[in-house]
Amino acid sequence: MKFVTAKDKNGVFVGIVNEENNSVLPIRKAEERRSGELHFPVTMIECIALGDDFIKKVENLIEWVNNSEGGKELYVPLEKVELLAPIPRPAKNIFCVGKNYAEHAIEMGSKDDIPEHVMVFTKAPTTVIGHQQKVLNHLKVTKELDYEGELAVVIGKAGKAIKKEEALDYVFGYTIINDITARDLQSRHKQFFIGKSLDATCPMGPWIVHKSVIENPNQLNIQTKVNGEMRQNSNTKHFIFPVEEIISVLSAGMTLEPGDIIATGTPAGVGKGFKPPRFLNPGDVIEVSIEKIGTLTNQIADE
Amino acid sequence: MKFVTAKDKNGVFVGIVNEENNSVLPIRKAEERRSGELHFPVTMIECIALGDDFIKKVENLIEWVNNSEGGKELYVPLEKVELLAPIPRPAKNIFCVGKNYAEHAIEMGSKDDIPEHVMVFTKAPTTVIGHQQKVLNHLKVTKELDYEGELAVVIGKAGKAIKKEEALDYVFGYTIINDITARDLQSRHKQFFIGKSLDATCPMGPWIVHKSVIENPNQLNIQTKVNGEMRQNSNTKHFIFPVEEIISVLSAGMTLEPGDIIATGTPAGVGKGFKPPRFLNPGDVIEVSIEKIGTLTNQIADE
Repeated sequence: MKFVTAKDKNGVFVGIVNEENNSVLPIRKAEERRSGELHFPVTMIECIALGDDFIKKVENLIEWVNNSEGGKELYVPLEKVELLAPIPRPAKNIFCVGKNYAEHAIEMGSKDDIPEHVMVFTKAPTTVIGHQQKVLNHLKVTKELDYEGELAVVIGKAGKAIKKEEALDYVFGYTIINDITARDLQSRHKQFFIGKSLDATCPMGPWIVHKSVIENPNQLNIQTKVNGEMRQNSNTKHFIFPVEEIISVLSAGMTLEPGDIIATGTPAGVGKGFKPPRFLNPGDVIEVSIEKIGTLTNQIADE
Repeated sequence: MKFVTAKDKNGVFVGIVNEENNSVLPIRKAEERRSGELHFPVTMIECIALGDDFIKKVENLIEWVNNSEGGKELYVPLEKVELLAPIPRPAKNIFCVGKNYAEHAIEMGSKDDIPEHVMVFTKAPTTVIGHQQKVLNHLKVTKELDYEGELAVVIGKAGKAIKKEEALDYVFGYTIINDITARDLQSRHKQFFIGKSLDATCPMGPWIVHKSVIENPNQLNIQTKVNGEMRQNSNTKHFIFPVEEIISVLSAGMTLEPGDIIATGTPAGVGKGFKPPRFLNPGDVIEVSIEKIGTLTNQIADE
């Protein structure tokens, strides 16, 4: 199942995208049609917090929609809605793992930069935008805007001191993040936060794929193209720290909560890694594709 | 005016502490008594977001309470309520400035560690606790728990690319934060986030003092005692980056929002700065005092 947050003339809603990726079922509206009641919460985070019960209810709903007369008319063509980020306003900063692919660590410096321990920084909730929404170009504050295609993990239930062996039980699903970074600010301010938290520099989506679709998050092809040209082409099997270890380390002393988002790091091929560097310009289109999830496309704003 | 979030048998409420610091006026309840209506929102962030209008309404309310018969009975003795952090659940991570006093930068390393640019990391919202609430000792994940007394700025209205000269217009008020840090995790994981975000390691309070009380946030005595012994004793005039500059740098490309919290860095005298280091132990009591605000007291949990 693919979960989206979308917007039409009636407002923002949580929906399920069909297999053909061309239409979306607004679950609150569909449930109202079915039972006359609004059983589903309004936001994705609240839906996720319902736990396994949410998935069962959605499965039942889809079955009813597909088998009842006129049910399929509840689906809305995707081109008639605006996709927002699946979690448009996270309840805390996004956790981001730094340098989780050895070749990326090397391109950013040298072999000495390959981390021995999980390194985590954050992006502010104000960075989040959806698929096809514009990345601000921030020409006044940076000359070195760069892309980073990443697999993102969405946490499904609260947990602390989570063991590696049980870590995937705490996952709701997976999405794609483009961790747009101002390289000059990142190095000038030492700690990464400022260079990572410019407004509208965290494209996320297009949807969250439920964990049942992805048996092993550490075995997924990941690619990033800029204006159609392949820049990053790797596989999450090259993670230094696999998803289970990231969850275990992060939760050792900090409670993870439903709707928390963890970006797992980017492979080699970022703009800064080229000689000379190839930073982003207004108008550039970045596409991040991950196997079994889809493609997240965003353009850098002209103005 | 001193704004608290507190809890009694009827639930959580926003209140104003009287001048003697011995009782609190629950503003929603008092307003209901006055007008029969619930004019105030439930949470501190929502109150702050009302802007100057909120302050005017509160001033009117207090005047009515103090001048009406039986009005003063609306005040509740402070010992009958539990103070929570003034913002018990921030809507995003807390922004923290690293090494903002030269002597602290030196005690953590050398003169080379004095930053040339504002350095910012974050603490997760799950770290926040109130005055007199227990700091978890995290014995299983750290051997090096340390204190950091800090002035914290609470943002009052949304702003981006805020000029230094106008920065204080965007402040709602000031509070105290004890940025409890696991030094071993801080250095092991390079980026500071993990060592700064253990559950219940961000005491905040006891209240937010409105900005009208503090003419110059860069001229306040700040002291930290552990078990009654003075450890930090400085003044915010020693900031490398004053409050106005922090707000200006942070907001250059990132929108600040009402209720955002910025911890401004800690002076020299942290446990790690002693030779040998003097880290915190279960049962230790830490008091952070800042001129014109008050004292934030917390004990490290025994278990």
